[in-house]
Amino acid sequence: MRYVRFRDASGDVRTGEWTGEDGAEITPFPGASSRLDLAPDPVAAADVAVLPPCDPSKVVCVGLNYADHAAEQGKELPDRPLLFLKTPNTVTSHGAPVELLPGKERIDHEAELGVVIGERARNVTAEGAESVIAGFTCVNDLSNRDDQAVEQNWVRGKAFDDACPLGPVLATPEEVPPDATVECRVNGETRQSSSREEFIFPVAELIEEVTASLTLEPGDVISTGTPAGVGPLSDGDTVEVVVEGVGTLRNEMSIP
Amino acid sequence: MRYVRFRDASGDVRTGEWTGEDGAEITPFPGASSRLDLAPDPVAAADVAVLPPCDPSKVVCVGLNYADHAAEQGKELPDRPLLFLKTPNTVTSHGAPVELLPGKERIDHEAELGVVIGERARNVTAEGAESVIAGFTCVNDLSNRDDQAVEQNWVRGKAFDDACPLGPVLATPEEVPPDATVECRVNGETRQSSSREEFIFPVAELIEEVTASLTLEPGDVISTGTPAGVGPLSDGDTVEVVVEGVGTLRNEMSIP
Repeated sequence: MRYVRFRDASGDVRTGEWTGEDGAEITPFPGASSRLDLAPDPVAAADVAVLPPCDPSKVVCVGLNYADHAAEQGKELPDRPLLFLKTPNTVTSHGAPVELLPGKERIDHEAELGVVIGERARNVTAEGAESVIAGFTCVNDLSNRDDQAVEQNWVRGKAFDDACPLGPVLATPEEVPPDATVECRVNGETRQSSSREEFIFPVAELIEEVTASLTLEPGDVISTGTPAGVGPLSDGDTVEVVVEGVGTLRNEMSIP
Repeated sequence: MRYVRFRDASGDVRTGEWTGEDGAEITPFPGASSRLDLAPDPVAAADVAVLPPCDPSKVVCVGLNYADHAAEQGKELPDRPLLFLKTPNTVTSHGAPVELLPGKERIDHEAELGVVIGERARNVTAEGAESVIAGFTCVNDLSNRDDQAVEQNWVRGKAFDDACPLGPVLATPEEVPPDATVECRVNGETRQSSSREEFIFPVAELIEEVTASLTLEPGDVISTGTPAGVGPLSDGDTVEVVVEGVGTLRNEMSIP
């Protein structure tokens, strides 16, 4: 099942199932709107505003979780997960235009698999981690390299407004194979292509590591790092993050 | 005016004015509870659970904003504000017991002046910054040095659960003088003592710098850095952060 949240023509926030090739259609769930309608008609995804599939209080991101990306950044493999944070102001939707920070030399795409947390989690072991996962989504970990390169903590570099496109759906765990591909396309051209199998720290270990220090709330996201092939974005670029079993998160970039 | 939020004996969240020496008394505002009571009786602060004065979606913290603290940490003065993040799981109340992470060599107190944002703010200049400030509060920027020393981004180091005691009140700007003292006491002994006058980057510049990259929402907090005198905490320590014009934020630490 691929859950989607959207705002319908009357402005109501509704939830439904994302069906058809690349979510051509959304079948709203009964009772998800304020109207009593036990068998709502499908709507075209293109006709509604798709919302992020969850409202994270924080996105805990992982750096250097693929060996090939660590190599391209000239970094050694970490001996434990490199963590950083994205705040709620970073979250934006599938399909929403993204206005990047002006005056920067280089803002990069980073395609990632996002893990959406389903229940409050603290001190969860890797063995028990599966039980706190609601599902998976696509994340574009937009990265302002100008500032990231000179900051101790990547705040301007990673937590600027709209730096975390998220979606389009929450795919339940059985939809996403253990070797799911994680890809990025810019203007239709594949720039990143790898697989969840290449993670240095698998999802269960990330959950154990993060929850050893802090509580994850329902709707929080762990973004699992990006493979090799990151690169700079230009005004007008369309970026797609494609995770096998989830679908395609698509946003057009502008630089004011 | 010093606003306080609290939970009364019946479990209702109410707001009121913090009055008397060190907030011995709270005068609830009319209409702030579900009961129609135009002249509520004062309650003893000790008899209610004081809540954080705001619900930040993020706390943007500033490192090394006092020259004496930079020196004691062996760091050079930054040429622009060093920023880092605390997430909502870090926020806890005046009076709440704080359970620190177990097994760490050193978790430190850091007394800070917190700036509470009153309206949505993006690209605010220093000249216009005053208009987005709701007021000030006390922050204890609890810092797990074991992890901070070895992390690129201070997530385990600064964003662990309860790492941001906040309160007890939101003091409106006129309550807090430009040279307000910022102090920390541990078990009654003064460990940090300085003044807002010693900031390397004053509040207005911090607001300009932060909002150049990201939106601050009402209730978000900028924590303005800590003066010299930080030091390790032990099981059972009582930590007080005292900001002139705000009052005293008091929490007892435990280490499981």
